[in-house]
Amino acid sequence: MSNLSTINIGICGLGTVGQGVWKHLERSRADLESRLGVTLNLARASVRDPKKKRAVRIPAAKLTTDPLVIATDPSIHIVCELIGGTTLAREVTLAALKLGKTVVSANKALLCKHGPELFAAARKHGGHFFFEASVAGGIPIIKSLREGLVANRFKLIYGILNGTCNYILTRMDREGLSYPAILAEAKALGYAEADESLDVEGWDTAHKASILAYLAHGTWVPVEKMLVEGITQLTQADLQFARDNGYAVKLLAVITRDFDTGEVFVRVHPTLVPLTKVLANVNEVYNGISVTGDVVGETVYIGRGAGQDPTASAVISDIVDAIILLNRGNTPLPEPVETRAPLTPLEKIHGSYYLRMDVKDEPGVLAKIASALASHGVSIASVLQRPSDRPAAATLILTTHSSHEKAIRATLAHLRKLSSVLGDPLLLRIADFAG
Amino acid sequence: MSNLSTINIGICGLGTVGQGVWKHLERSRADLESRLGVTLNLARASVRDPKKKRAVRIPAAKLTTDPLVIATDPSIHIVCELIGGTTLAREVTLAALKLGKTVVSANKALLCKHGPELFAAARKHGGHFFFEASVAGGIPIIKSLREGLVANRFKLIYGILNGTCNYILTRMDREGLSYPAILAEAKALGYAEADESLDVEGWDTAHKASILAYLAHGTWVPVEKMLVEGITQLTQADLQFARDNGYAVKLLAVITRDFDTGEVFVRVHPTLVPLTKVLANVNEVYNGISVTGDVVGETVYIGRGAGQDPTASAVISDIVDAIILLNRGNTPLPEPVETRAPLTPLEKIHGSYYLRMDVKDEPGVLAKIASALASHGVSIASVLQRPSDRPAAATLILTTHSSHEKAIRATLAHLRKLSSVLGDPLLLRIADFAG
Repeated sequence: MSNLSTINIGICGLGTVGQGVWKHLERSRADLESRLGVTLNLARASVRDPKKKRAVRIPAAKLTTDPLVIATDPSIHIVCELIGGTTLAREVTLAALKLGKTVVSANKALLCKHGPELFAAARKHGGHFFFEASVAGGIPIIKSLREGLVANRFKLIYGILNGTCNYILTRMDREGLSYPAILAEAKALGYAEADESLDVEGWDTAHKASILAYLAHGTWVPVEKMLVEGITQLTQADLQFARDNGYAVKLLAVITRDFDTGEVFVRVHPTLVPLTKVLANVNEVYNGISVTGDVVGETVYIGRGAGQDPTASAVISDIVDAIILLNRGNTPLPEPVETRAPLTPLEKIHGSYYLRMDVKDEPGVLAKIASALASHGVSIASVLQRPSDRPAAATLILTTHSSHEKAIRATLAHLRKLSSVLGDPLLLRIADFAG
Repeated sequence: MSNLSTINIGICGLGTVGQGVWKHLERSRADLESRLGVTLNLARASVRDPKKKRAVRIPAAKLTTDPLVIATDPSIHIVCELIGGTTLAREVTLAALKLGKTVVSANKALLCKHGPELFAAARKHGGHFFFEASVAGGIPIIKSLREGLVANRFKLIYGILNGTCNYILTRMDREGLSYPAILAEAKALGYAEADESLDVEGWDTAHKASILAYLAHGTWVPVEKMLVEGITQLTQADLQFARDNGYAVKLLAVITRDFDTGEVFVRVHPTLVPLTKVLANVNEVYNGISVTGDVVGETVYIGRGAGQDPTASAVISDIVDAIILLNRGNTPLPEPVETRAPLTPLEKIHGSYYLRMDVKDEPGVLAKIASALASHGVSIASVLQRPSDRPAAATLILTTHSSHEKAIRATLAHLRKLSSVLGDPLLLRIADFAG
């Protein structure tokens, strides 16, 4: 496969991202061809409906309804899998890899669910699998972790990885509107999917965290093994408390590693981030990632995390890397060494917490709550009582000193059983891990 | 040179950075060897004084006082040029490149002054020249611009590229102390060189801006063709005005390109950056760079910009890239296409300005100043008068609406001639280019 003069590229899935890749590759073709010394040929694209009107004009002869035709076409060197989902996308990716082709993917769910299988297929058949677009859109975070920071071990990586959640939280904070109101608007504007649960429940962030953890630590942490909490329970009371106390609320992925024990822990949860941290000021649909390496110290990367153009930017950078690779004797990039690192047991996880609950507005309630916390060894750092929307109730907001995750969970279970506590208490984390 | 099983590395210059590279390469050797499938051999190092005590222990047999011995040693594959300066460093680099070796450098002055010669030598003799460590220390900004954002054209790049200046400005702002007081302390702490002029006059930032402009636009802009202003004239009056009006003062490099005319403009100056921008909150010795690509939108990169460890992190990432390259048939990375882009003529440069001057505290002075501005077509946006340290004087701070650089310069010359204006007025730029 060395020194190809023409590179044939197939695009599987011509949705928003696929059309973006086609458009921007056409636009930058002359520049890229002169820098790479090859001819770039956008050879084929697969679509569900060939008759559908698209912003990008593609000759009908280049269209097919079957992405497997592209994946198995012997003339195609690079297959872009932009179908999404984990069924057909997996079939297409494996078919191409088994023929020794290079696959460029933006599919974090696929990678998270079938990463080991895909990498093994690439290795076995001499193909390659690129996935810069799978995390944080146009931010070159995969390349930075794998190549730019290769001299480092990563004690802490944390980031805002979901633009939809960050957009909702930013607008709730700025406009004082409720979660359901902003969500409805975000859907109308196309910033949230019709089924928003993958985003707002934290699973999309978890998929991306899994990929970053693999790159940093050489181990796949399945999302079921993570602590994953979403943003659906947040109210104005939480955002206002955060603002008044020098925090912003962000849905963070947090990946920690203890280099003494080798243990890795991955969690996703809404977090009170001090406004002094850069990520507290990353707003709207932007993503931001803080990477602390033992040599480089803290580095931060910010950019738009999704959408046609940023994702296309990342896919095209992978295509360029793939072309260099194909014309260089096909030696792969250094993959992380598989570590099968153990996961940190829950007993070892600790931090500062924020608890918000509605309580009956009657004498003795605060004493009951305070003793519940004390009975689990959880030490209170601050208390705020404010009026509740519920009749004859008050909203109580507590923050704790550093406590064990197990203790705070036991506390939560305890509080739920108290008759003075109305509804379900909300637990948030305070980003004390961020130093 | 394909498929080397042992890579011999020579370190020319065993100062702070050289020792950092040696230390961290030794520390991460096992991990890197397993990922790269090669043996890493730190073969030789050059020092000025072999007897000097160093934190890193190196067998005497590996030391030489002549870096050219390393550069021309046929067994050495990768030469790290960490000597600094542009004389011996150039000799060493050219000697190695002419033998087809790969050189890894942290030397922005060398690159800025002799870049075309070095790249030509590398191309001619089949060697390579890497320089990730030359800009922004451990932040992988070279890799991001060249590879991660390869699909983009860059309308605007701006950044804080000098840690010493950012440290001084941060401490002046936080502690209310004068520039000379903080500078003296920074020197005592080793955050500023004995001769600080390269940093505080903006030349170090200009060197780095030149490298970024080359990568982004394929043209070398010599520092003499840039607008370069330093931070030595800044006082508490400026920092306080900035704070009170929602800005932070940062020494920025700004690289703009007009894709209609092809023109490039590079400038370095202290700038009032709105606190809503991420870079306004990048403090202490940290660097930060905002890169706006036409596909990806704005991306931001933050990290420590200098010092032993961050620089070593960047040098080692280059060494790893070099090894992959050497074992991959030696095809070079795509360099920018030489554009010889024209420079934007000064007539076209415009922006909002900040003017601070001491004036005689007597009737009619404000009218004179205001008419001076008006006579050059410069429109005033805000006026603040405050007490001056000078007797019988007031400090006048004006901001302007968007004006032409030529007009503001003519205004400045005009103001200098007025007898009511005491001393030299200070001109700062307001970052309206940052949108």
